[in-house]
Amino acid sequence: MSDRPETPLLDQARTPEELRKLNPAQLRQLADELRAEMVSAVSVTGGHLGAGLGVVELTAALHYVFDTPNDVLIWDVGHQAYPHKILTGRRDRIRTLRQPGGLSGFTKRSESEYDPFGAAHSSTSISAALGFAVANKLANKPGRAIAVIGDGAMSAGMAYEAMNNAKQAGNRLIVVLNDNDMSIAPPVGALSAYLAKIVSSGPFLSMREFAKRVAQKFPRPIHDAAKRMDEYARGMATGGTLFEELGFYYVGPVDGHNLDHLLPILENVRDSDHGPVLIHVVTQKGKGYAPAEAAFDKYHGVQKFDVVTGAQVKAPPGPPAYQNVFGDQLVREAERDPTICAITAAMPSGTGVDRFAKAFPDRTFDVGIAEQHAVTFAAGLAAQGMRPFCAIYSTFLQRAYDQVVHDVAIQNLPVRFAIDRAGLVGADGSTHAGSFDITYLATLPNMVVMAASDEAELVHMTHTAALHDSGPIAVRYPRGNGTGVALPAVPERLAIGKGRIVKEGKAVAILSLGTRLEEAMKAAEQLEALGLSTTVADLRFAKPLDEALIEMLLTSHEVAVTVEEGAIGGLGAHVLTLASDHGLIDNGLKLRTLRLPDVFQDHDKPEKQYAEAGLDAESIVGTVLAALHRNSAGLPARA
Amino acid sequence: MSDRPETPLLDQARTPEELRKLNPAQLRQLADELRAEMVSAVSVTGGHLGAGLGVVELTAALHYVFDTPNDVLIWDVGHQAYPHKILTGRRDRIRTLRQPGGLSGFTKRSESEYDPFGAAHSSTSISAALGFAVANKLANKPGRAIAVIGDGAMSAGMAYEAMNNAKQAGNRLIVVLNDNDMSIAPPVGALSAYLAKIVSSGPFLSMREFAKRVAQKFPRPIHDAAKRMDEYARGMATGGTLFEELGFYYVGPVDGHNLDHLLPILENVRDSDHGPVLIHVVTQKGKGYAPAEAAFDKYHGVQKFDVVTGAQVKAPPGPPAYQNVFGDQLVREAERDPTICAITAAMPSGTGVDRFAKAFPDRTFDVGIAEQHAVTFAAGLAAQGMRPFCAIYSTFLQRAYDQVVHDVAIQNLPVRFAIDRAGLVGADGSTHAGSFDITYLATLPNMVVMAASDEAELVHMTHTAALHDSGPIAVRYPRGNGTGVALPAVPERLAIGKGRIVKEGKAVAILSLGTRLEEAMKAAEQLEALGLSTTVADLRFAKPLDEALIEMLLTSHEVAVTVEEGAIGGLGAHVLTLASDHGLIDNGLKLRTLRLPDVFQDHDKPEKQYAEAGLDAESIVGTVLAALHRNSAGLPARA
Repeated sequence: MSDRPETPLLDQARTPEELRKLNPAQLRQLADELRAEMVSAVSVTGGHLGAGLGVVELTAALHYVFDTPNDVLIWDVGHQAYPHKILTGRRDRIRTLRQPGGLSGFTKRSESEYDPFGAAHSSTSISAALGFAVANKLANKPGRAIAVIGDGAMSAGMAYEAMNNAKQAGNRLIVVLNDNDMSIAPPVGALSAYLAKIVSSGPFLSMREFAKRVAQKFPRPIHDAAKRMDEYARGMATGGTLFEELGFYYVGPVDGHNLDHLLPILENVRDSDHGPVLIHVVTQKGKGYAPAEAAFDKYHGVQKFDVVTGAQVKAPPGPPAYQNVFGDQLVREAERDPTICAITAAMPSGTGVDRFAKAFPDRTFDVGIAEQHAVTFAAGLAAQGMRPFCAIYSTFLQRAYDQVVHDVAIQNLPVRFAIDRAGLVGADGSTHAGSFDITYLATLPNMVVMAASDEAELVHMTHTAALHDSGPIAVRYPRGNGTGVALPAVPERLAIGKGRIVKEGKAVAILSLGTRLEEAMKAAEQLEALGLSTTVADLRFAKPLDEALIEMLLTSHEVAVTVEEGAIGGLGAHVLTLASDHGLIDNGLKLRTLRLPDVFQDHDKPEKQYAEAGLDAESIVGTVLAALHRNSAGLPARA
Repeated sequence: MSDRPETPLLDQARTPEELRKLNPAQLRQLADELRAEMVSAVSVTGGHLGAGLGVVELTAALHYVFDTPNDVLIWDVGHQAYPHKILTGRRDRIRTLRQPGGLSGFTKRSESEYDPFGAAHSSTSISAALGFAVANKLANKPGRAIAVIGDGAMSAGMAYEAMNNAKQAGNRLIVVLNDNDMSIAPPVGALSAYLAKIVSSGPFLSMREFAKRVAQKFPRPIHDAAKRMDEYARGMATGGTLFEELGFYYVGPVDGHNLDHLLPILENVRDSDHGPVLIHVVTQKGKGYAPAEAAFDKYHGVQKFDVVTGAQVKAPPGPPAYQNVFGDQLVREAERDPTICAITAAMPSGTGVDRFAKAFPDRTFDVGIAEQHAVTFAAGLAAQGMRPFCAIYSTFLQRAYDQVVHDVAIQNLPVRFAIDRAGLVGADGSTHAGSFDITYLATLPNMVVMAASDEAELVHMTHTAALHDSGPIAVRYPRGNGTGVALPAVPERLAIGKGRIVKEGKAVAILSLGTRLEEAMKAAEQLEALGLSTTVADLRFAKPLDEALIEMLLTSHEVAVTVEEGAIGGLGAHVLTLASDHGLIDNGLKLRTLRLPDVFQDHDKPEKQYAEAGLDAESIVGTVLAALHRNSAGLPARA
């Protein structure tokens, strides 16, 4: 196509093997072509732009110096791996990124032998790399394991747990700390301050200047490699003592866009006996694409955009995103109540906590990528009389499951959980789907679990949670925009464990939890058209169940169906258990439970995912008809 | 009682307030009395001895110097808090420790205002303390929050996450690092090596000697406090740079048994504006009780014992503990297969991995208290061709839930989970109960979940897991000893997802999962005596279900009952979902699910806990009779 960049070198380097046939002096141009190709691709697919742009040179250098895939290269999180995908045989599919049937937006084992370990959640790479390194050590295989991890990801405890065990790998483990000082949100915490201190220190800056001047004279002064290695190495610039105390040989900081520095340093590390090594590389997110360089945060995850202007294709104006409805309501609660506070784990805008932070900076806590700490910190706040809201995506709350059980639920402390991205998430795929929270929360004693069926309900539920002081309470809601209903002027305090009937009927009962309510209503319409009078209930609570309402619905209709956007063990299981406990199934009960299927669904258009999951109106109707032994015309099916 | 120690000072110090009325010079004697009282109490109750003995002086000093409970004192893990309980109004109940209806073996909010935050799992204290400190800061309350955390607990990521955020608390946060170099197992990892290096360094040792000599001349040279503070402080001995780089003002190392050192340092920290402060205190586990000092590991958790000799009351010889059956079988698997390896998170003996470590030290990985890393490390090993067994207690696997989902299940990697302490745990109470693993694992696609009904089954299941290469597989088994069945000479490879019928009958079907099988068999006997012919099945698998077997059992018996030692959402829920999916409930199905109740059960004798949970033979029989509308004589009940 005419708008694709010219990429003569990249065209020759379709695999790392081919890349390694290039002359080192050609890598600068290759990196430029790689960057242009990536910008071009993401402009048509949308996705993560800034992170990949920051590691173009690093990606090329790592594949050039190391023997991938025998040396395994593990990208933490994986959203910076687009250049890696281009260089590892997937260039022909790079414009299918995040599209249905296309490449994943993260690394994925099933995609390529160059993706030895999939990622998407942060901070797993060092542990995984250590596993590879140790396996090679035990098998006497030579392969190294290289983890590339951002400074933001370093705030997670599991990265520290892994570093604390790194010595087991000997010199087979290399950790590349990609320090771009800007993960998704501005990084927080002591470690970030520490890295900033190193990078901004006088010795480092002057050394960088010096190196630049040297590099200008000698395009790739390989003979200076040993010398520069020493310059960069431990203690030289200012430190890295933190990493040294954790047992690493520290090298850095290194300018991650300067191949004349990167290549010899990586070669030295490759050939050295020191181990494990941590290479501290400083990069700029969005590097080399002016609109991304100029923006802050904006080019992390992008829509399709115009390559020349950087203007992103805007979604048509629509209903507000759930996260913002939550954030705005939390502000209103906090205006009323000085004990309300908000906690986010490095996702201020994704959770709507950014809105709260503007209004109440002192009561906002961004703890970094540290969900475990976030939850127990919230428990401590609650024990001392605050009313904390912990706003964490469903999939990331898995990181803090023990803290939810041990520190919150057992002690029955009133921590409020605002669980965003509950259910399917479209292009982000299975790693980000919030499939299990109903199951893993509703099994816990003391826990209250709500699901909002639209944005007005989310207002009520946020308000209800704010006022709920007798124990923990969670509200779950999906990714994306609301349904467009009017937001209530005055929020309602909901009765705990009480559902509501949205539409009354006689033959069929649909018991819905969450935003599938819209499809339940559509299904009801279709059923009515087939002569089946249908009740639709919004149960609101997965725990405690509205036992009276449910028992009434089950016993007064011919057939009942539960609908939830969650995996087995959640609402449907609890309703069945209730029906069994109360003996309702003893004499016959047509009850079906619609739920997420027992597979990890690939990324796709949400509508496709819902159809595949059997959670759209058609599936509800089909389930009801099958239970009633009727065909699609609503007539009795032949036996 | 005649064997109780004389404790004239302790008798006067029933609360911290009374303690603070003592003369500081009296604290040495008070500590001796406290130690004697604690030894005496634990000799009759059993429990954790060594940890408490190590912090006797520290406990007295903290309550003496700080204004508890306004200053909150949070003990990490909590098993070292027996002296704290004695000093905070619970001395009269100290001989009820861990007994039914008695004091908890850990800190517990409902027990005392001096227990501001309960514990039992490791490494939560800094996060919780930070919550208290920040709440006080927001409310302009003066109270400090003091977390006392062991060196072993520092290996957990959440401690690091908390330290990385500690600056938010200003000088309201004090972390006491209780460095006894011997948590439960020898501590592992880089941090331990680092602490050992500090403590064993020349400057520290000579300073200690110097301080001793000074202290001999001046019993409590308060006037030297400022000077000593400086001596101990940052950079003086050798370091603490790791903590300084995380934003703490580091003080130490301090001899934790020397009150002449502890008191002035704590007073200085209390009165200083530095913050947050980390005080590095060196203590000896088991201190002051010769048998404990001499033993290694042995006095961590003890049975009742003789105070003079230290001899513990031995349990009568019985069947082997489940953990040892697992460990021994794993050794046999590893003899056959060089890729088998074992991972433990600081619980080598509790999980039986110690037996494996003796035979295969190179294939054993004790990662410290770092469950998140343990699981993803195992995933990395599996991805590179090893066959790793991750041996983690059910309750602690909650710490790694996201890693199980994201790194293992989504990638369908063959990590083997050996889940000990699944179900109720008696004296350890609700914090250690393994109540949720069936639910939180069986909801995951790709996961295979087995439960052993006796130790012979555990042999088969360990073998089956070793051979299962197509994805993740878990086997759960309880705390304690087996049933006494003969262990198989040759282990059997079980068919995945196939149960077995243990006893055939006609009217009643009991579908058992796990070791409740024994009670199911007893229930069957009682039912037969009432004229109800009973089938008992051992389902073996919670996932995948043996659909054919279950469907046959449900449809060919008058009533069916599932029995599992797990909370709602597990086996019973999956069986009900199967019955609903297949339309088996449409025309009437007497199916009941027995499971753990929806409460966190207090510590008690296991038999009592099972009766309370409704998981003993009587409850099974009662459930069957109620479903059949029969009375306890098996006769039709009047309507």
